[in-house]
Amino acid sequence: MEIGILGYGTVGRSVYRLLQKVEGAHVKYVLEQPDRLTEAFMTSDADLIFEDPSVELIVDALPGIHPSYEYIKRGLQSGKHVVSSNKAAICYGFSELSELAMKKGVSLLYEASCGGGIPIIEEILRVGALDQLDRVSGILNGTSNYMLWQMESSGMSYDEALHQAQELGYAEADPTADVSGFDVRNKIIILSSLAFDTYVEKDIPVMGIERIGKELMEELQKQGKSIKLMGIAVREAKRYALAVTPVVLDRRSLEANVSENFNMISINGEFIGELKFYGQGAGGDPTADAVVRDIEKVLFLDSTRYQRSFKNSLSYDPDLLCGRCYIGDQAFEDMRLSEGMERAKSEDKFFAFEL
Amino acid sequence: MEIGILGYGTVGRSVYRLLQKVEGAHVKYVLEQPDRLTEAFMTSDADLIFEDPSVELIVDALPGIHPSYEYIKRGLQSGKHVVSSNKAAICYGFSELSELAMKKGVSLLYEASCGGGIPIIEEILRVGALDQLDRVSGILNGTSNYMLWQMESSGMSYDEALHQAQELGYAEADPTADVSGFDVRNKIIILSSLAFDTYVEKDIPVMGIERIGKELMEELQKQGKSIKLMGIAVREAKRYALAVTPVVLDRRSLEANVSENFNMISINGEFIGELKFYGQGAGGDPTADAVVRDIEKVLFLDSTRYQRSFKNSLSYDPDLLCGRCYIGDQAFEDMRLSEGMERAKSEDKFFAFEL
Repeated sequence: MEIGILGYGTVGRSVYRLLQKVEGAHVKYVLEQPDRLTEAFMTSDADLIFEDPSVELIVDALPGIHPSYEYIKRGLQSGKHVVSSNKAAICYGFSELSELAMKKGVSLLYEASCGGGIPIIEEILRVGALDQLDRVSGILNGTSNYMLWQMESSGMSYDEALHQAQELGYAEADPTADVSGFDVRNKIIILSSLAFDTYVEKDIPVMGIERIGKELMEELQKQGKSIKLMGIAVREAKRYALAVTPVVLDRRSLEANVSENFNMISINGEFIGELKFYGQGAGGDPTADAVVRDIEKVLFLDSTRYQRSFKNSLSYDPDLLCGRCYIGDQAFEDMRLSEGMERAKSEDKFFAFEL
Repeated sequence: MEIGILGYGTVGRSVYRLLQKVEGAHVKYVLEQPDRLTEAFMTSDADLIFEDPSVELIVDALPGIHPSYEYIKRGLQSGKHVVSSNKAAICYGFSELSELAMKKGVSLLYEASCGGGIPIIEEILRVGALDQLDRVSGILNGTSNYMLWQMESSGMSYDEALHQAQELGYAEADPTADVSGFDVRNKIIILSSLAFDTYVEKDIPVMGIERIGKELMEELQKQGKSIKLMGIAVREAKRYALAVTPVVLDRRSLEANVSENFNMISINGEFIGELKFYGQGAGGDPTADAVVRDIEKVLFLDSTRYQRSFKNSLSYDPDLLCGRCYIGDQAFEDMRLSEGMERAKSEDKFFAFEL
């Protein structure tokens, strides 16, 4: 199968390398900037790739919504399978792109968009096919986890931790998407849509880690607690809610012990109980591994099994997320998360939810 | 597809119930004791099941090596697919049964034999197809984990913890296989054979939790450490080693925080890095979920993809497992695990390995 890869950054490069090992896969083009065309298979002309009928599969390894969203759409429209690692673009056009793939009878796969090398989307689809999933939650952003882990374990300040994350290449020069919770928002929207078989609400409560300071970390340390940035989606009968929020956890919970830039994602099924998956949530090689798994589904399995038309039978009810909320240095019991978060924002205070 | 289920205990019953939801699957027979034939589809006559050519798939949900081993063999020989949750029988006849399935062109699947509802075998096969796995390890026995967890968190004695595990139905009346490490041995042999593409040595160092007492737990508590029973398999170039042993862990590691009767299994790939999977390692419903996943592979996928002829290119070298060993109340650095364990056994002392 002839493949075109869009982008030759960390992920694109690893995908190219890993695909050399996959029988039946051949990379015909890599889309690159005009000044970086170092190999014969590279081109800066997207039309060349999309208009070549021999190219049956497009790998989108670009960052950001645009032009990924347009490229994914164009690929599907021309009857090509699309495998994307781009959570921002997938989340942005989720219902439209999923339905376009169905209509065109091709596959849109995006295992690498959430949790890097962790096969979480596959697990949600498989478990969900037999079981009812009532909860998806997890540590979904490696950069912010690295920062919180350093603040807790080495007593670093927020700025020191951010600086170190940037030095290690975990955080971008502009780390806004990571620390603001926006990256986690994209991922939890994708995951909970699949788990709940519903295109979920996108205007959800989101709070990042920017207001978390050294004093709070020290206070939590004394109480035997940790703080993590998490995406949480819950379902009760026909209603669901989701949010991105700093979460206060018991030090002996598994999530509290997720160190460095790792991710951990939990799903809860009526039948199977709780399953948790831990691994590298980012990085070229783990992400490429997930991309290649998706390509293998197209090559060797009936990848249309992974597509489905969403039932959309659930309704959004943010009040489902209710419990102990921390606003600044005060704790409130049985408070609605959405209310607490708004109040914290309006008062420019720290917010966290207790799990 | 017509299916025969051998055994109607916790697992067999859950499989029967869950299969009602799976299109294309029909349970024709359930093998039960003569005095328990309460339903029309039940029979105590195994011949009836094996000689019925319309039965294409056998589910082995029996405990213990015999007669499961003979039934699995007979099923494969008559050209039926076999799905088993029985680690003892699979481990016992692993190479013979795997090769018989290959020869007969049918599937032998056993996801449920290790880690209950955790899809660890599938992950090992998938990751291993692209990547080199250098390590498989984990908490693979829920009963012993429950006991160690109670001893650590509630200060119970070994006997109190065992008694409670039995009351909760986690431990059998004869808990030997769970507490002696024999159950973990079966599982780590199956998992590492798949990970290393080699029928691994079965005569490996095995130590259970019987010698772990309250005093040791209190001492570890002071040092910020925990103890867990783990299966460990490592590979270096063309050599591998495996063992079952109590392991001393830092309190902030993930494994140290696996509570109750949960399992956690890690795999390490050159490309993908570390992946960990956590869930219910036993119990009717989670185990049945894994059995049904296997049945779905036969029904909907090309399940022969999950079979492979082992390369057997690695050689066993127990000296690869070397590090800090605890014998009684003494710690020894850079000691070979096999040597330390033997010494502990001959002196009737507690043994643990530090990870």
